Amino acid sequence: MKTQVAIIGAGPSGLLLGQLLHNAGIDTLIIERQSPDYVLSRIRAGVLEQGMVDLLREAGVGARMDREGLVHDGFELAFDGRRERIDLKAHSGGKTVMVYGQTEVTRDLMDARQASGAPTIYNASEVQLHDLKDGQPSVTFVHQGVSQRVSCDYIAGCDGFHGVSRQAIPEGVLREFERVYPFGWLGVLADTPPVNHELIYANHERGFALCSMRSPTRTRYYVQVDAGEKVEDWSDERFWDELKRRLPDETAERLITGPSIEKSIAPLRSYVVEPMQYGNLFLLGDAAHIVPPTGAKGLNLAASDVNTLFRILLKVYREGRTELLERYSEICLRRIWKAERFSWWMTSMLHRFPDADPFSVRMQQTELDYFVSSAAGRCTIAENYVGLPYEDIE
Amino acid sequence: MKTQVAIIGAGPSGLLLGQLLHNAGIDTLIIERQSPDYVLSRIRAGVLEQGMVDLLREAGVGARMDREGLVHDGFELAFDGRRERIDLKAHSGGKTVMVYGQTEVTRDLMDARQASGAPTIYNASEVQLHDLKDGQPSVTFVHQGVSQRVSCDYIAGCDGFHGVSRQAIPEGVLREFERVYPFGWLGVLADTPPVNHELIYANHERGFALCSMRSPTRTRYYVQVDAGEKVEDWSDERFWDELKRRLPDETAERLITGPSIEKSIAPLRSYVVEPMQYGNLFLLGDAAHIVPPTGAKGLNLAASDVNTLFRILLKVYREGRTELLERYSEICLRRIWKAERFSWWMTSMLHRFPDADPFSVRMQQTELDYFVSSAAGRCTIAENYVGLPYEDIE
Repeated sequence: MKTQVAIIGAGPSGLLLGQLLHNAGIDTLIIERQSPDYVLSRIRAGVLEQGMVDLLREAGVGARMDREGLVHDGFELAFDGRRERIDLKAHSGGKTVMVYGQTEVTRDLMDARQASGAPTIYNASEVQLHDLKDGQPSVTFVHQGVSQRVSCDYIAGCDGFHGVSRQAIPEGVLREFERVYPFGWLGVLADTPPVNHELIYANHERGFALCSMRSPTRTRYYVQVDAGEKVEDWSDERFWDELKRRLPDETAERLITGPSIEKSIAPLRSYVVEPMQYGNLFLLGDAAHIVPPTGAKGLNLAASDVNTLFRILLKVYREGRTELLERYSEICLRRIWKAERFSWWMTSMLHRFPDADPFSVRMQQTELDYFVSSAAGRCTIAENYVGLPYEDIE
Repeated sequence: MKTQVAIIGAGPSGLLLGQLLHNAGIDTLIIERQSPDYVLSRIRAGVLEQGMVDLLREAGVGARMDREGLVHDGFELAFDGRRERIDLKAHSGGKTVMVYGQTEVTRDLMDARQASGAPTIYNASEVQLHDLKDGQPSVTFVHQGVSQRVSCDYIAGCDGFHGVSRQAIPEGVLREFERVYPFGWLGVLADTPPVNHELIYANHERGFALCSMRSPTRTRYYVQVDAGEKVEDWSDERFWDELKRRLPDETAERLITGPSIEKSIAPLRSYVVEPMQYGNLFLLGDAAHIVPPTGAKGLNLAASDVNTLFRILLKVYREGRTELLERYSEICLRRIWKAERFSWWMTSMLHRFPDADPFSVRMQQTELDYFVSSAAGRCTIAENYVGLPYEDIE
């Protein structure tokens, strides 16, 4: 088999890159270890930055999102008994975010890929990458019991943190940056109406809480839990009780509870590798970087990597500008580090840290108080939340 | 003896409060443990916020400052080999800062006090505060071998961190917040022309450095040193070498060195007590709070406490509004916590911490990069550096 760009992983970033390249007349093959149902079963983020929304539209997969997604032009910070709204639109020159679940994005992209006739191989095992630096790159894998080899020009590693792509890079090439936070998020998905039409991020002495949603009838709520907590120890009742205690009183009173559809605990981590490329292999999204979920940057960062690689490959195939390939990592990382900073800042400001002394707790509250009381402070939150501009490729 | 307001401490805050009250026809007595020369020998900050400049003018002691002080409408942040200017005037609605040494401020205030005929008692020993909560407050002390007692309405504790005022408050009343930073500042005063017409705050892998000045011919430079360092181990030559290594190359090349006039190491600490009052005793400046020097807020915070107490006392004596006295602490603390935040942030962003991992170092650099690359980010730095507005007393 032969293709121009082999894409490892059929999650949202692999599918989006595939769709953009396919629309541009560039051949792709997507190779995925799991089944389509497994990919769709992963519950992830639900807030899309303006840039990602525009990119999905550009890829021709924005119709259902534009119909069913919820445009949010603000969110709230709750602390010290107060609720303070950040007006995203007013403070970012008119930008907004779109509440639309990652599962829905993935489903739309899968449908579009199927309709386009471009090939995706699911349930591929023993995926291996070859000749990344010299010669013709290729990917080998086993599918339905048969070993296969695909030759290609470039490989896009969209297979997440635990995928083979990053691991295919020889030892000593990558530099890792990491921060593991001493707590996790216990998340519950429920078919209940949201307590507020916008998200509420709450700093509370019992720990962080987040009131989020997927639709007008489906909510996603979170509470910060200790690193060692087990989901089995959290009945629905205990979860709702804890959530209510962390919200301002009037908010807690209006919260409508219901049985959980899904309940899980996720750890919080910041992680970046440099560089994000090796020869003809390019890493995208979680394969190269992880953010804690505070601020909802994970999926959006993957989309901005897709945007960068797509624009570069367009110029490579249409104008022969192969020198741009060398700049992929550097271009991505400028924006990634800023999103890592924002996610780290949101995490640091909103969670209760086990080693916090009274001075640290006051600094958190004062940081929140200062940023919401200053027009410039609100702007810094808004411009990061809607997403900093994508880098131009020239 | 009798007075209306007894002021403990003849440093800049005690003298400034005394001058403002005297001008308003309110009797004051200033009681100082040290001699005038000792007070003047303390080398301290040199950057005055717009609000303090205005307050000094209002007190009638701004003439020499306006003649000899240097108006700065910007400063620079150096990091990652870059020098980035923060345009204070452009980003704060036209505000600036004044470079004019604390020693000069103190001298001007001393001269004004002497000219006014209002009494100051220097070299007062065994200063004690009495009946703060109930009955008539008084201060006792020994002066020239004679024990004295001053009855008063109110006592202003302007005697610094180690003074008797805060210690006169019974145990259990005050809540303390503290952060001790694991490094100090080695400062050198020299009669050399400044390397730059504005201050340069430098983040460098060898540690923080600051290029500051007192006048066009007198410089004040600092380098971060480990907590245990001794000033005896720092020859002038070693200091200049270290400073140059921490500055961008072209800056280091232009640095003119010379013999040190003064050389000392200061620890860095954040400290706040709540509340800042007890009965008829009010704490001002360092008696109630300490900031690390990064951002030059220490003297300026003392001035804003003076402003608050002065405005309240005016309304107390002129309009009988004694209920305002209860709000002194709360009004001061709102602004103090924000200045503590800014000083903590500047300190956190610019110094090398002994326990910093690669992720922390990148977060520092990214924080600096983000804040200088964003118009809103620059505004947050500028509005804090020139000083947040004084609270209105209504």
